[in-house]
Order: sequence, then C-alpha cells, then structure tokens
Amino acid sequence: MSKGIRDRVAVIGMGCTRFAEHWDKSVDDLLVDAAYDAFEDAGIEPTDIEAAWLGTMASGYAGFTLAGPLKTQYIPVTRVENLCATGSEAFRNACYAVASGVYDIVLAIGVEKLKDSGYSGLTRPQPPSDGTAPNITAPASFSFLAPAYFKKYGLDPEQGKGVLSRIAWKNHYNGSLNPKAQFRNEVPIEQIKKSPMVAAPLGIMDCSGVADGAAAAIIVRSEDAHKYRKDPMYVKALSIAAGPGDGRIRQDFDFTSIQENVASSTAAYKEAGITNPREEIDMAEVHDCFTPTELVIYEDLGFSERGEGWKDVLDGAFELEGRLPVNPDGGLKSFGHPIGASGLRMLYEMYLQFQGRAGQRQLDNPKIGLTHNLGGTPWQCVSFVSIVGKEKSD
Amino acid sequence: MSKGIRDRVAVIGMGCTRFAEHWDKSVDDLLVDAAYDAFEDAGIEPTDIEAAWLGTMASGYAGFTLAGPLKTQYIPVTRVENLCATGSEAFRNACYAVASGVYDIVLAIGVEKLKDSGYSGLTRPQPPSDGTAPNITAPASFSFLAPAYFKKYGLDPEQGKGVLSRIAWKNHYNGSLNPKAQFRNEVPIEQIKKSPMVAAPLGIMDCSGVADGAAAAIIVRSEDAHKYRKDPMYVKALSIAAGPGDGRIRQDFDFTSIQENVASSTAAYKEAGITNPREEIDMAEVHDCFTPTELVIYEDLGFSERGEGWKDVLDGAFELEGRLPVNPDGGLKSFGHPIGASGLRMLYEMYLQFQGRAGQRQLDNPKIGLTHNLGGTPWQCVSFVSIVGKEKSD
Repeated sequence: MSKGIRDRVAVIGMGCTRFAEHWDKSVDDLLVDAAYDAFEDAGIEPTDIEAAWLGTMASGYAGFTLAGPLKTQYIPVTRVENLCATGSEAFRNACYAVASGVYDIVLAIGVEKLKDSGYSGLTRPQPPSDGTAPNITAPASFSFLAPAYFKKYGLDPEQGKGVLSRIAWKNHYNGSLNPKAQFRNEVPIEQIKKSPMVAAPLGIMDCSGVADGAAAAIIVRSEDAHKYRKDPMYVKALSIAAGPGDGRIRQDFDFTSIQENVASSTAAYKEAGITNPREEIDMAEVHDCFTPTELVIYEDLGFSERGEGWKDVLDGAFELEGRLPVNPDGGLKSFGHPIGASGLRMLYEMYLQFQGRAGQRQLDNPKIGLTHNLGGTPWQCVSFVSIVGKEKSD
Repeated sequence: MSKGIRDRVAVIGMGCTRFAEHWDKSVDDLLVDAAYDAFEDAGIEPTDIEAAWLGTMASGYAGFTLAGPLKTQYIPVTRVENLCATGSEAFRNACYAVASGVYDIVLAIGVEKLKDSGYSGLTRPQPPSDGTAPNITAPASFSFLAPAYFKKYGLDPEQGKGVLSRIAWKNHYNGSLNPKAQFRNEVPIEQIKKSPMVAAPLGIMDCSGVADGAAAAIIVRSEDAHKYRKDPMYVKALSIAAGPGDGRIRQDFDFTSIQENVASSTAAYKEAGITNPREEIDMAEVHDCFTPTELVIYEDLGFSERGEGWKDVLDGAFELEGRLPVNPDGGLKSFGHPIGASGLRMLYEMYLQFQGRAGQRQLDNPKIGLTHNLGGTPWQCVSFVSIVGKEKSD
C-alpha cells in the first residue's frame, strides 16, 4: 500500500533571487545566485549535493544548463517540465528520490528568464494544427472564469470587479512588504479597478507579469534534518493532477471550478491527514496568475464554501491579518512569475514564515502551509498541491 | 546512508511500437500503442496506473500530451527531459517514486516523432550566441572520436574503418532478426565501408537514423511483482552522470573516452554490487548513435580493456554468440532512435531476453543486463547506466 510522503523528507536550505527584469544576468547567473543562496542557508558545500532536479519550461534543456554553472561533478541532473507547475515538479521528484533512500541530500532548482525570451503568453506552445482547440493568450483563457463566476453567484459586474480588485490589492500590499518581490508597491484599489483592459473583465492589474528569477531547495530525509538545522521544513504531502483534456474546452466545463485543483487538493489533504483545510491550514501560496484564478482556487481547495469565496475576499479572510492568509509574499501578481521558479518560490515563503524570517509580512507562528501551482488553461491543466509543516506530526 | 535502488523495484509489463517512419500516426497514437502494449503485457487496466512519467525531447510538453490520449483521470503526469537520455530519465524517476512508497504502480513512457518534426540533428537546441561553443551536427561531433582512437591505438584508417564497419554490421545483423526494428536488413560489410560520407570518417552506415516510436514500462515494488507475473525484471542500479561542461570542447578532452560514461557506469556497478562487469554482465544495450560511440563505450564501461575494444570487436566479442552481446535488438543503428523512447526501448530488449521472448535473437538464459543511454556531445553529455536482472539478488 502506498504510504505517502508524510513527513519523511525535509527542507534544510532554500534560496531565491529577487524576481525582476534581470537584463544584466544570464540564466546561469540566476541559477548560481539561487543555488548558492540555498547552500549558504543550509550550511553545506555545493559538492555535498548528490543529485539535482532542474525545473525550467523554456530557459534551458537537459541537465547541462545546471551542471555547467554549478560546476557539479558528474552527478545526476534531471530536467522536469510541467508548464507553469514546473518548479513544483522539480521539488516533488527530488523529494521522491530522497524518500526512496537512493540519495541523502539533493537540490531542486527552478529558473526562467522570460523578459528577453520573446515569451508570448500563449497557452499552448504547440497549438493543434486542426484549429479545434483555442490558442489564445493566458489572460484570455483565465478571463472566462470571471463572468461565469459573477453570473452563477449573482454578482453584478461592478461588484465582481471589486472582488477581483481586492485580491490584486491584497497581493500588491503583501508584495510591498517583500524585498525580493518584482513589484514592491501598494496600489490603490481604485487604480486597480481602472487599469487598462487586457481581456475583459481583466485589466492589467488583474494579471501577473513577466519576470526573470530562480529559486532553490535542499532536501534530505527527515531523520537527517537536524544535522543541518534546528528548524527544517517538513513535507507532508505532494500531489499533482493532470487533466485528461485535449486542449478543447470540454462541453461540461462550467468555468467556476477547475477539476484538477479539486483532485490535487483532495489527494494532498488525504496524504497529509487533513480533514478540515479551513481550520488546519495556517497560510497558503496559490497560483494567482490572474485574479479570478485565485478566487476559484479558494473554493476548489476548500478555503471557502462554494459561492462564498467572494464574500470571504471582501471580509479580508485571506489578508495577512485574516483567518487564512493567502499569498503573503505577494504571489505571482506581485512577487512575479518566472515560470520554472514559481513553485519553489511558493515553498520559499512557507519556509521563511515557519522560521520567523518573513520580515514585515511575518505571520503569527504558522505551523501548516499549503502551496498550489497550476500549469495550463482552466479547462486543461496540471494542478500541484503541497502541504508543508513547521513540525513533524506524531 | 543512501542504499541504492537494488532490487527494490521491478518491471511487470513493457510495450514498444515498431520504430519506423510513422507518417500515418500521431504522437498520441504512438503513446497509446506503446502504453496499451504494456498494459496488456502486465495484465492491468489503464486505470490501475497511479502516476506516470513521460519522456520526450521535443514531441510534446507537460503532462498534457499523455493525459489526453491515455485518458488518465487526474493522476500525476510529469515530463522529464535529458536530451537523448530522456527515456531513461522517465524510467529512473518512475522507479524512485515507487521505491519511495508513494505509489504502488506507475507508468514510464517515452516518445518521439522526428520524421515530420524538422529535427536537424544539431547538438545544441539553443546554441550559445557568443559563438564560443560549436553548434555542429551530431555526426560531426561524434566523428571526432574515430581518428583520435585510431591514432592513440595505432590503427591505420583502413583498419579503423573496418572496426567501425564491423560494429555497424553487427547491429544491422541483429536488427534483421527483430520485427520491431526500423531497418531489418543485413548489410554486407563492404557496402558499409563504402557508404556515402557524412562526417569523415563516418559514412551514412556509421550513423543511426531518424525515427518515430514509443516505448513503455509498468513499474511496481519488487514485493508486489509476483502478483502480476512470474517473470518480472528487477532493477539493480540506475545511475546518471551529467558533465560539468559549458558546451566548449574542454582543453583536457582526449576524444577516446567519455568521462560521463565512466562516472555513470562506476556508480551503477557499485550500486548493483558488480565488481567485474566483463564477467558478470550477460548482455547490454548501449548508445550506438554512431559506430565510434559504441567502440568508446566498450572501454568506458569496462567491457574491454583500454585500447583493446577494437580487437574485441574483430573477435566478435559483442556479437550474439560472443562473450558479451551488445545491442542484440539492433541498437540505435538498426532498431532506430526516436529520442524520448530509446532508453525504454533498451530496457524492453532486456525484458524480452530475460523472459525468453526475443525470438531469433534470443540469447542463452541471460541473467544480468545493462542499458546505457547518452545525451549530448562527447565533451559534454549526460550518461545513464542501468543494471537489470532476471532474478533478485539475495
């Protein structure tokens, strides 16, 4: 019988670059910066690493892009890729390799350098040639969630826009407290509401940006973690669900829920032994690529009842002082979204918060955190959920 | 302490398409063909699979390309990529996930559809823009091994060409016995010697071709294997070594050995407890992308003493009746090389041979096999070595 990852591996070091427009740095520079930040944090030498997983969607290939700059000496380096969930896959596969007992200490690292890549934001790198599946921009594909949600739950457009803007406002406010965030400015809610339209009803302020960056984690088995530090982060669940679609919008897709999110969170809660996520989870980093995505995620992951997420937003439930702070680091919206790095950046925030190192945005002693990372379109995606903890369960 | 994969996981089903020019099949068709071949072989339903790893270099992205055609329902599908060693990475990461206890039964599958892809055979998908690293074709990069080897060990060009041609002849002969091989014709050695020059001294008959295909494996923990079949294949070692280069030809590179091969095979022998590979390994599938690659591999992997590989070739040591048959299925040369599928195709031959299902090319009761898969150039690559067995060690 499968037994889950439950507390069997731990993170003993993490690193992250600032997410930004790094015109003056190469992909290799970003990898070195994040990796050495993690090595230093863990108190290890680069040569201590026995194997590595590199997550990148388009800023490299194979293990070469990592073995060169890090000067690793004939260790395994595996590239993994799962669109915007790529960084989480690097972490997940690295955790399994350690849990298997094959390696004692490994590196998971993610990178993307998008600003100079010509990245178009199209949802399908290889659009089907038969024209049956839409090849539209990411903002357009996620924009569909907003009017569908508003209609289903009786919000008029003005109300709906207010809810979305409040989500963007929250993430910008949180990012303003984060020295590593791409956008470190608070933005008034009225300015968010009036931001130039990108894909109605989404304005530019409803959208995460395009950024460069890298993030890294050092993973060991839990029984070894205290050799490295007194305050490791424990991994309680890792779940990925890939939707069975073919790129077409499914006939039964209702645009107010993403089935992949439901599947991955349900599996993760089971793996971690969580029965009431609203009560048991103290903080979360979720995939707020666009504001309606975050709104739907609240309900898909059980942070809000169905149809109640928008009320919880207006009540401040997910703000730093709320009952379940979401995206305390600023999220994709404000921290930035260099694709291969984002999943690891989310874990980085959990790690800092558990250790009381989150500065002005520090929460009050959080013990259980969740990260949620999504790749694809609402109607066909991969959804990743991790549950991490400050302490080992009994 | 790390404990290696030693016999902890087993393969209970495999499938493979014919490798060929599949103009009439899509990538999805090839995936379905290989996966259902494996499901049928294992006696399982597609819905039994708990997670999957998809290896493809360029014929897909993310897990989408697999979840769609196989109609998997919200299970994890992870894409891995390590150039020509991609298929082996799918297998390796799937094995670790099972060994970790997180999943009970998983699928590793590799695919590539190259014939209609415009694949150029360039060694670097993203050549460096500063012009410091060569961006040459794969045949050219591996051709350098031949004259270097001839010079170091005193072979004149005619002798050397004879050795290379004998390797090509062997692989074509073996492929002629294999109904799933791309090229199923024996080729006279004189014709091989005179084949049109591609990258001197390599003629077209020294080169593997461009093919479409897919291969798949179903993996469980060893203690569960007999629930599915009486004759599973056990995994004794999995090793990958990524070279630390940056694309440039290293100053100290001598062109008669690939350090990554030495590193990966040394680690694999240690993991499997093999001290004398020449005696203990009964058969091997190695990465014969070009004939001099296979020659150098013999020595890098310890199948021959340094400088003696060419003599062993002429003695027939690696032929079906020889002391250590290499590429009994025809190898990349004759079976074909759809990139993401090749590593799994090598394992497929081990599996058939262990079960006595290799038809006209069946070896006499082999018990220990090795697969070797390589991605990159001789001076910067990833090298994968697996050791697999018919029986569990004590």
